[in-house]
Amino acid sequence: MEKPYVIGIDMGGTNTVFGVVDARGHVIARSSIKTQQYPEINGYIDALHEEMMKIIDSVGGIETIRGIGAGVPDGNYYTGNIEFAPNLPWKGVVPFAQLLTDKFGVPASITNDANAAAMGEMTYGAARGMKNFIMITLGTGVGSGIVIDGKVVYGHDGFAGELGHTTAVRHNGRPCGCGKYGCLEAYASATGVARTAKEIISTTTQDTLLRKLDIDNITSKDVYDAAVEGDKVAIEIFNTTGRYLGEKFADFIAFSAPEAIIMFGGLTKAGDFIMKPVREAMEANVLPHWKGKVKLLFSDLKESDAAVLGASALAWEL
Amino acid sequence: MEKPYVIGIDMGGTNTVFGVVDARGHVIARSSIKTQQYPEINGYIDALHEEMMKIIDSVGGIETIRGIGAGVPDGNYYTGNIEFAPNLPWKGVVPFAQLLTDKFGVPASITNDANAAAMGEMTYGAARGMKNFIMITLGTGVGSGIVIDGKVVYGHDGFAGELGHTTAVRHNGRPCGCGKYGCLEAYASATGVARTAKEIISTTTQDTLLRKLDIDNITSKDVYDAAVEGDKVAIEIFNTTGRYLGEKFADFIAFSAPEAIIMFGGLTKAGDFIMKPVREAMEANVLPHWKGKVKLLFSDLKESDAAVLGASALAWEL
Repeated sequence: MEKPYVIGIDMGGTNTVFGVVDARGHVIARSSIKTQQYPEINGYIDALHEEMMKIIDSVGGIETIRGIGAGVPDGNYYTGNIEFAPNLPWKGVVPFAQLLTDKFGVPASITNDANAAAMGEMTYGAARGMKNFIMITLGTGVGSGIVIDGKVVYGHDGFAGELGHTTAVRHNGRPCGCGKYGCLEAYASATGVARTAKEIISTTTQDTLLRKLDIDNITSKDVYDAAVEGDKVAIEIFNTTGRYLGEKFADFIAFSAPEAIIMFGGLTKAGDFIMKPVREAMEANVLPHWKGKVKLLFSDLKESDAAVLGASALAWEL
Repeated sequence: MEKPYVIGIDMGGTNTVFGVVDARGHVIARSSIKTQQYPEINGYIDALHEEMMKIIDSVGGIETIRGIGAGVPDGNYYTGNIEFAPNLPWKGVVPFAQLLTDKFGVPASITNDANAAAMGEMTYGAARGMKNFIMITLGTGVGSGIVIDGKVVYGHDGFAGELGHTTAVRHNGRPCGCGKYGCLEAYASATGVARTAKEIISTTTQDTLLRKLDIDNITSKDVYDAAVEGDKVAIEIFNTTGRYLGEKFADFIAFSAPEAIIMFGGLTKAGDFIMKPVREAMEANVLPHWKGKVKLLFSDLKESDAAVLGASALAWEL
């Protein structure tokens, strides 16, 4: 009998969430462990195995599992290694896919979280049936997964698709966590939106609901709540953020001529407040040939499931 | 017996050059016709057939020909059509690959000239053995051919790889022929270099050999000749041009993580005067992960052969 399930693992710096997924994209069992609790990778693997076998046993045991896919910070699809991940407890190179295979006795494959999100969207989400699209994840950082001809682009060394670190502002750009200046991530990540909010609020005398909040702790949720009330400064913050994104999207289209660009993550909760300026800037900057032709979409996967689903999608390919 | 030859056609707005190519990348016979002389596509096809059969017969006749590849302005690989090419005599959509196949009785495939250049480099040139690289053609315009996993990227509609029309200068950029402002092509094409020369010469009082020339007709060859003499303004013109290119190359690397970026065309004749600033700007702007790792190369195909070779490379895939 065909093995009916795959495992998806979404490893973050704080939590590792995992689940058993069926072919229709339902997460039929799930659990998690704390990533930071295991200073040694072997301790982490043991804990992951113990917790995961509970949910695997609940669906019929390891013989029902086709394979394991994991979305991992700095995960390299080609080598299966985690390579010098600054936000994980384990330094240097960790042969993560091999460790999973050895421990569970099923094939395993890893990639980074944005590529996993792209796989998830293609397998179960808004990109079903698409062969060429770009996934942009808007969270703590700005990640991307690029799909060309039905395959995620990994490039020569496995690290392709770092669109959050292309340049949005060439001169006097903001410092980015990567060490560069002016990266898209410094403007369109959660922190980027907060920085834009702070800049705009402190350089205008305009009345705004946001001025009542602690300026150092404004979130895109706060900005959204104010925008819903018709707050002009809040709307301007989304317009500015959206303009940076849309301008870069026009460049991305010139690269791979995607059918769609799909946005995922916290910022997409702002709905039309962010979609409208992104679309306007994208259409204003794209080559005439593509005007009005490239779809701009939000992910339609449930946010709580998306990362596990995306990782699991890798395992169907094994 | 295996058919030993392919035909490569390089169609430009003025001339159409074509040749018979063997498997080792030698152009063993060549000829040309004037593109502009044929207001009707059928007249053009007839003339092409007549001239081409002479060289085909000189190598053993049509039965020695495996197929025809053509590099064509606005040529679409997927459809085989030339679509709304502003610089060709034939308006609208021309089913060029089909017309070739019907006339010659062998399979034919087309693409645009920059993609053809990438194919040529991969088949016969500096990218032999590479599966991931980006070809940048620096001529009248700035073109690009992107290779991922050993295949040219065409994208959803066949027009991927328009890197000359990504934005080099976001605000107050120069108008570009495409209707946008600030495109890389407006800075790194032949015209772009001339415009930079004009700008720099007219905004400095510094002594320069270039001031003796007609400022409206300075070419990159003139700038090169002056740079060789140690002319500081000429060197600054190449530095400026190289900086725009290198800055954008850093963004391109973040997209597809290529093993190499390969430059082709007139501007590469400036040698180190252009290579050095490109490399410096690329290294200064690329993510730390890729610093010192991506090769920057000039094409090693003879310029007179490259376009025909590139087009012919398409035909080996038929």
